This record gives sequence, C-alpha cells and structure tokens, in this order.
Amino acid sequence: MMKNQADLLKADERIDQLYSNDVRLIQSPSCFAFSLDAVLLADFVRPNRRRQLRIVDLCAGNAAVGLFLHNKLGGQFTEVELQTRIADMARRSIALNGLTDRYRVLNLDIADVFSAIPKDSADIVLCNPPYFPVTEKSQKNPNQYLAIARHELKTNLAMVAQQMSGLLKMNGHGYLVHRPDRLTEILTVLQQQRLVPKRLRFIYPKPGRDANMVLIEAIKDGKPGGLKVVPPLIVNDEAGNYRPEVRKLLYGKD
Amino acid sequence: MMKNQADLLKADERIDQLYSNDVRLIQSPSCFAFSLDAVLLADFVRPNRRRQLRIVDLCAGNAAVGLFLHNKLGGQFTEVELQTRIADMARRSIALNGLTDRYRVLNLDIADVFSAIPKDSADIVLCNPPYFPVTEKSQKNPNQYLAIARHELKTNLAMVAQQMSGLLKMNGHGYLVHRPDRLTEILTVLQQQRLVPKRLRFIYPKPGRDANMVLIEAIKDGKPGGLKVVPPLIVNDEAGNYRPEVRKLLYGKD
Repeated sequence: MMKNQADLLKADERIDQLYSNDVRLIQSPSCFAFSLDAVLLADFVRPNRRRQLRIVDLCAGNAAVGLFLHNKLGGQFTEVELQTRIADMARRSIALNGLTDRYRVLNLDIADVFSAIPKDSADIVLCNPPYFPVTEKSQKNPNQYLAIARHELKTNLAMVAQQMSGLLKMNGHGYLVHRPDRLTEILTVLQQQRLVPKRLRFIYPKPGRDANMVLIEAIKDGKPGGLKVVPPLIVNDEAGNYRPEVRKLLYGKD
Repeated sequence: MMKNQADLLKADERIDQLYSNDVRLIQSPSCFAFSLDAVLLADFVRPNRRRQLRIVDLCAGNAAVGLFLHNKLGGQFTEVELQTRIADMARRSIALNGLTDRYRVLNLDIADVFSAIPKDSADIVLCNPPYFPVTEKSQKNPNQYLAIARHELKTNLAMVAQQMSGLLKMNGHGYLVHRPDRLTEILTVLQQQRLVPKRLRFIYPKPGRDANMVLIEAIKDGKPGGLKVVPPLIVNDEAGNYRPEVRKLLYGKD
C-alpha cells in the first residue's frame, strides 16, 4: 500500500535509503535524520525470525532502527517516539516501506509506555536514546527537535533502563547504543534494573582514537557475569574514508 | 651490587629477559612466570618520573610489573606477594637488576598490607590479581603456586579494590588488569571503593575474537564519568604471530 512519494513528504523533508537492506526513510536535516549509530545498533542485534516476536523501539525517532531490522527480526514492532512531528515521520516511513502490517507508532513519552504496552510483554527492546546529560548549553539549543533527540531533556538513562526492563519478559533481550564515557554509569543502571550486560561492542572513529560509541546487549534476569566484549569496529581509515565493514552496512557492498 | 647469577637461582629456575627494557626476571615454570598480561599492564601505566613517588604492586609475583616500570616511574616500589617462595624470587629478581635501593618486597597477604604500609600513602597502586573465581576444579589444582596466582583462593576482586583504595592517596591512580567477562562486577566494585574508572583498554587475542583482557586505570575520589576507552590492542595476526605493537613491547623492535 505504498502512496505516491510526493504526498508523503513535507517541505524540508527528503527520502534517504539504506542501500544495504533497501529501507527508505523520511528524514529532515532540521528535525531528525538517522546516523551511523542507528545502523550499527541494528547490525548488533542478533537475528531472530520468530513471527511471534514482540519488539519495542524506544526513543524511536523516524523508526530507523526498527525498520533496518525488518528482515532480521520477525514479529511486530512498536515504535515509541515522544516528538509528534518525528513520530509522524516514522509513520510515513513505515508506509513508504509497505510495512504498516508489522509496525505501529506510539507518539508517547517513554515514561508513559505502560499505558499502551503491557509490562513483561516484549521479547526485544531497542533504544538509541539521547546521549548527553543536560547542561546549560543543551537547554539553550535553538533547535528543540535535535536538542531533545541528543540531550537528556525529556528522558534519561535511568528512565530508559527502567522502561526497557519493565517492558521485557524474563530472559528478553535489550539493545542499547550509548557513549563510552558513561560506561560505568550505564552498566550500573542496567544492573539496578535487572538487566544483565552480556555483550559489548566498542566503536572507534579512526585508528588510534578513543571509542566514541558502545553497543550493549543485556538480558533481563540473566545470569550475572559472562560478559563478552566482541571485536571492535573502527569506522574510518586514516584518510577518513569508511572502512569496508561500514561501507558494507551502508551500501551493501565493500 | 649484582651477585653471581648462578648463586641467585634455585634448581627449577631460569632467568628470562624482557628485551624491550633490559629487565631480567627469575622465573620458574613450575611456580611463577610472568605473562603478557604483566607486560601490557606496565605498558598501560602513564609515565611519571617524580622521585617522591610511592608505588605499591599488589599480588606482585616475581615483581615483573614493578620491575618493567623501573624507567617509566620514579620513586620507591613496594612489592607485596603472599607466597613465600615467589616473594623470594621477587627479591632475587630485584637484586639481579641492581635495583635494591628502589624496591622492597613484603611477603604478606594483601589483607594485611596496612600492617606494613600506611593508609592513604601511595601515589600509584598496581595489581595483576588472580582472575578466576574459585570453583571445585581450581581448588583441586595440584600446583598450588599456580592455583593461587590464577584463582581467587587467597584473595578476591573485592579485597583487591578495597586495599588498592585504602593504600591510595586522594587522586592517586590505581592500575588493574583483569578479564572482560567480569567487567560489570569490576566497575561496580571499584566504584564502591571510591575508585572511579577513567581509562580502559581492551586486549583481543586475534582479529575477529572476543577480548580476553582489560586494562583499567582508576582515580581515587576522581570526578565520576569521563571514562576513556582507548584504542584496542590485537595481540596476534591471523597466522598466530605477534603483531608489531606486541613485538615491540616484548623485544624492543617491530
């Protein structure tokens, strides 16, 4: 049921395609556009094609992470996005990909997610949350869309972990992308919420640089310990060009 | 004041040299021999040549970590080793390198370290502790020297963190090498002991393999957050040969 594309777009919007899996996304540079973080989080998720899966994507933005996973995960996706304008982009992106039968969008604060989704009901919860603690500067960002997506103005790590845990069934899997400078806090907060970290992947922007992203898989009520730190990903080569693994994720070829 | 080498050695012992910094160590395959972990921990320590430094090396073994740092750190080293036979190897290794004026060995359980070293007196504490929780198998290891060095039979992570913190001055630096499968526990226990993790390095045995070692720098009463995950180290190439960075650490050349 794909509509005419022009009908789908508002003035400042465009359609971008992830060539590696044919997903098209409605984006707006002034409002929301997915970044490499979303691509890497989706890549980090283990495949599971069970049709009964219930998947919740928190802080979903334009549904990028959820849509990137349409082939890798079976079942039904619920995309939860606070910002009305961006939730609307998510709905239209889902329609653009002809996936309205498997995806729904809730325009909701994740704090209120249990008004619409039962506790202990999800097999998988995904989240690409705002990374940055609130500072005076972040509160003064003139672009409120971007400020809310990037800074903890409307939610925070503790809330993300609490809602991820509340949504998950026992032994359900939570996936999170975040910043390594907060790793100690992240692992502490997850544990406090019965989410046992089981797999980490560190992402480095270039050879010789510190990690600027960490991917985390946690299991609700998992057995403590046994954390795997899987092989690192270095995004760019010395010259600043994407390395082959990243090119493959973005363009579907080396 | 180097003695004749033959006088220094007991029957099953040999002298091994780290060619990259001319340190020679008395080792015994049946008792204690340093491993790559010790070399990497020493490499991870930031140089500081202040002559007033007070450095404590816990679970010191034959003093490998401390001796590897004789050029990179100034000041006085105290090597704390529980096992009498191994503490004796440490003393003779120090003599072999002519460093008795800067190093002393305490043959002591780290639980009793404050009987010999004042609290809040160290600028730097190093530790390459036993990594493995006690299991039925580890208690039955026929070689008690190796069992105690590798398994938490006589001490454990909580004790290591407590004594590291107790020894350090405010803003003193603790350095630890451990196993990534216990990372969540490690970061939690350090925090509980006022040791704020500030820098991590993950060590991977080969391309495509999970990390098997993590190096950690923590600052006592440091400002929370701001953790750096520095570039990874991959030890071997696909063929199983040391990669250039490791060859340089071991042999002093690429």
